[in-house]
Amino acid sequence: MSAAAASSHFLLIRCPDEAGLIYKITGVLYAYGLNIIRNDEFVERQDTYFFMRTEVAGTFEPADLTEALRQVLPAAAEIRLSDNRPKRIVLLATKEHHCLSELLVRHAFQELNAHVLAVISNYEVLADLTQRFGVPFHYISHEGLSRPDHEAVVLQVLAQYQPEFVVLAKYMRILSPEFVAHYANRLINIHHSFLPAFVGASPYAQAYERGVKIIGATAHFVNEQLDQGPIIAQSVIPVDHTHSAREMAQAGRDVEKIVLARSLKLVFNEQVFVHRNKSIIFD
Amino acid sequence: MSAAAASSHFLLIRCPDEAGLIYKITGVLYAYGLNIIRNDEFVERQDTYFFMRTEVAGTFEPADLTEALRQVLPAAAEIRLSDNRPKRIVLLATKEHHCLSELLVRHAFQELNAHVLAVISNYEVLADLTQRFGVPFHYISHEGLSRPDHEAVVLQVLAQYQPEFVVLAKYMRILSPEFVAHYANRLINIHHSFLPAFVGASPYAQAYERGVKIIGATAHFVNEQLDQGPIIAQSVIPVDHTHSAREMAQAGRDVEKIVLARSLKLVFNEQVFVHRNKSIIFD
Amino acid sequence: MSAAAASSHFLLIRCPDEAGLIYKITGVLYAYGLNIIRNDEFVERQDTYFFMRTEVAGTFEPADLTEALRQVLPAAAEIRLSDNRPKRIVLLATKEHHCLSELLVRHAFQELNAHVLAVISNYEVLADLTQRFGVPFHYISHEGLSRPDHEAVVLQVLAQYQPEFVVLAKYMRILSPEFVAHYANRLINIHHSFLPAFVGASPYAQAYERGVKIIGATAHFVNEQLDQGPIIAQSVIPVDHTHSAREMAQAGRDVEKIVLARSLKLVFNEQVFVHRNKSIIFD
Amino acid sequence: MSAAAASSHFLLIRCPDEAGLIYKITGVLYAYGLNIIRNDEFVERQDTYFFMRTEVAGTFEPADLTEALRQVLPAAAEIRLSDNRPKRIVLLATKEHHCLSELLVRHAFQELNAHVLAVISNYEVLADLTQRFGVPFHYISHEGLSRPDHEAVVLQVLAQYQPEFVVLAKYMRILSPEFVAHYANRLINIHHSFLPAFVGASPYAQAYERGVKIIGATAHFVNEQLDQGPIIAQSVIPVDHTHSAREMAQAGRDVEKIVLARSLKLVFNEQVFVHRNKSIIFD
Repeated sequence: MSAAAASSHFLLIRCPDEAGLIYKITGVLYAYGLNIIRNDEFVERQDTYFFMRTEVAGTFEPADLTEALRQVLPAAAEIRLSDNRPKRIVLLATKEHHCLSELLVRHAFQELNAHVLAVISNYEVLADLTQRFGVPFHYISHEGLSRPDHEAVVLQVLAQYQPEFVVLAKYMRILSPEFVAHYANRLINIHHSFLPAFVGASPYAQAYERGVKIIGATAHFVNEQLDQGPIIAQSVIPVDHTHSAREMAQAGRDVEKIVLARSLKLVFNEQVFVHRNKSIIFD
Repeated sequence: MSAAAASSHFLLIRCPDEAGLIYKITGVLYAYGLNIIRNDEFVERQDTYFFMRTEVAGTFEPADLTEALRQVLPAAAEIRLSDNRPKRIVLLATKEHHCLSELLVRHAFQELNAHVLAVISNYEVLADLTQRFGVPFHYISHEGLSRPDHEAVVLQVLAQYQPEFVVLAKYMRILSPEFVAHYANRLINIHHSFLPAFVGASPYAQAYERGVKIIGATAHFVNEQLDQGPIIAQSVIPVDHTHSAREMAQAGRDVEKIVLARSLKLVFNEQVFVHRNKSIIFD
Repeated sequence: MSAAAASSHFLLIRCPDEAGLIYKITGVLYAYGLNIIRNDEFVERQDTYFFMRTEVAGTFEPADLTEALRQVLPAAAEIRLSDNRPKRIVLLATKEHHCLSELLVRHAFQELNAHVLAVISNYEVLADLTQRFGVPFHYISHEGLSRPDHEAVVLQVLAQYQPEFVVLAKYMRILSPEFVAHYANRLINIHHSFLPAFVGASPYAQAYERGVKIIGATAHFVNEQLDQGPIIAQSVIPVDHTHSAREMAQAGRDVEKIVLARSLKLVFNEQVFVHRNKSIIFD
Repeated sequence: MSAAAASSHFLLIRCPDEAGLIYKITGVLYAYGLNIIRNDEFVERQDTYFFMRTEVAGTFEPADLTEALRQVLPAAAEIRLSDNRPKRIVLLATKEHHCLSELLVRHAFQELNAHVLAVISNYEVLADLTQRFGVPFHYISHEGLSRPDHEAVVLQVLAQYQPEFVVLAKYMRILSPEFVAHYANRLINIHHSFLPAFVGASPYAQAYERGVKIIGATAHFVNEQLDQGPIIAQSVIPVDHTHSAREMAQAGRDVEKIVLARSLKLVFNEQVFVHRNKSIIFD
């Protein structure tokens, strides 16, 4: 027999919109004697799709509550009850330390709402940093391996940790759609962005050539098209013509690590719904 | 007999929090066949006070709906139904044009959700600008008048317009508590702010002396303590040591007018609750 | 005989970098008894190109000073002496008023360091606004005209004003390279930008689809490739999933007008050098 | 015999402004065959005081060059030649880790242009973090000690490291003017700031009460008046009514650590002059 859930939980519901949804859902919660601490809804107008995130307090049997909700909701409804336990995550990195450092420090001080199970990298340079924080480090070089073969090894190591989320903390390898499919909506990436955008290699060199005044960072879920998935968080930092391309890249790193950490906080606290190619964020 | 309301309305409710509020409110809306287009709630934790703003679509009799809601809500509940008609407003200004220009232009292009009934100023310099936009201008000099006497004249002119809101668009006179009491939570002001703050005269000179790097603006409701009322919107703009005190003031004006316009949009679209000394904003 | 220049002037010099440039230039200024109020230099490292902007006070004969400077500078040097008179400008617009309003208001209050000689538009909707400010309005419809024919008429009207700069205040027509060539580095445009960028039609719809969190604006000189010229100023404004594509566009307009006005201030006050595809800005 | 300086140096000069200063200074540099890589000047208008920072490349004898410059400059001139070696610094902290973590990580990756010689704290909680990075940690409790006695011990430990700068990385003790006098213009602090400001205890609680929308951070030199010294860098982060006072404090920490790191970069790279109560920053 499963223990009845107490303390605060998040209830996450999404379904096609129809009249009376909030009434029906809150009716079930009321009948169960649950207190609504915070409630957010959003109806996506283009698809008339309904999203609701409710923080409830009280004691209940999760399976019972889910079933009771299912009775009053459309058949297509997705219902999720989360007890907000720390998420199990693995970090992938390459050579740059700024995002990895940020996450390892926050992890060390229990600020991430996650357990960092391991770090995987295709270089060894971040092994020392990772070990200072007592986190297992897996060096999986891509040298001499085809992309599928390299990814197969990475997937194998990932599999032994069974992470809920995989975070690309400046992992500079393009991932195949096959890899991405293993962690659909559970793979989070951070990348630089510019106003306007630059395509092709050496974006900071291009940004310098055109004299951009603002450098940004975007944290997003990864989907089959690289750097095209639902955006979770973005921020910017100003630069000017006295910044060399190298200094622009440094400025970019400061904003990247904060944006990545902020996006993880949103995701790990169950504040993010993915709908088509966008994120609905309740913050 | 009053016409039944159709089209979209805002329902604004606030009351002490208790279990089942959302369920009861949405139950009434459901019974009336109304569709919830958007719903926001917030519970202020310190006072356990409940705030809800709901956009509903459908046909209903406002008095009936309000009465039905009153039946299910705590006695202390405030219930407000708004049809989102443009608000009736009067602008007060002194000599600086930037906020007044911004509001007159937005008004001319129907972007303000308000009717600017008149402009009142203690100087004549903005008469020409105001008249270009076909808005009545009242010049009420404070020269030779005591503060109470000057305010009495301003109040008299205001009274003939019966404005729902009075906007201080850089009106550089201190208002007495008696004046403010006439327009409690209906009087909106914009003022510069600094990181850190400077008290006393010539704040821009002080900001220059200390080499501030950021200049801000705060739009807020006015209460009995000048510049101390609930904050509606804030923003900032960067400056540096090459800015003279005069250039810092210019930068401040750019951010002031945008922040004031943004705060009015929030207030006029019924997105703002005032609770004690803070604003609950649903945007 | 030309009157000797008094009061404050800007001296603008650019040339290939070499040792002793500042020494030689300031030596000439010292010999002429001129006082340096402010001095900025920058050496572009990739091309080792030297830029200098000096504000000098004193009395001098412009032709003499220029000649004296030419004696000590490399043959390729460009030397420019500006007395910072208001620039002669013409504004081009289409239907949106926000940038035009902003510039007409600032012009009316002498804040633009420019004379707005006329407004040209391919629609009539902004005629009323323009005339409220006493500025000539030319309606030149593109209906029934080929692009070259329409541009020919616009160029003809422009020619009669002999503007130093042409400002595209949300002029929504693509300009041919031939048109642009008439006003090389004198044609300034404002356009929305996104993090990341979206190509093709309906960028705000795309931004909405992907759930962008930041909307930006870029003011730039126009060159032969549309929207690809040297950037003068940029800024951003935050949005979220509750913004419809239309509300995102509204937010974009607030930032566009401030960025355009800021870029014009930089250009009209002689603070901008264009070098290849970037701007060197001394602010 | 001292070795002649090669590679890139910074020359920092300040003195009362007078005609011909740049000419005279660059004349000396030219005579020594030095190449000016970058040059910044600023004249503070209120005091007509001149500041110049020049990056020069070439080989020279520092004492000779300084003497040659002294010959051509006013008697009151301060002349400083820096070879941009990493600065020797000590960090003071209390219980919060965010600023200390940030600096230790940047130090570990040689991004700080400084050697962190030691960390001193009045609590033990940050000992583990510090030791992970191989930096000496001194626990100097203030329990049972008067302020002068506690400061005496801290000063004694500081003295053995002879730091060029002391960084208050969230050191939550008020420092006496006597302590500050030991490190005039060499003591750097970070503190939260608000728009508007709040005086007294529990600023985040006050910020919450008033519903502030923006939280900022200010890095500054410490002078005899606590939190009143010359500002080096500032930044802000947006918050709203859904943030509890605790979440506002968390947001504040993110911005504090980035602003502190940025201010140290400016100071350690010799980009900051202090003049009266402000900083002149060449970035």
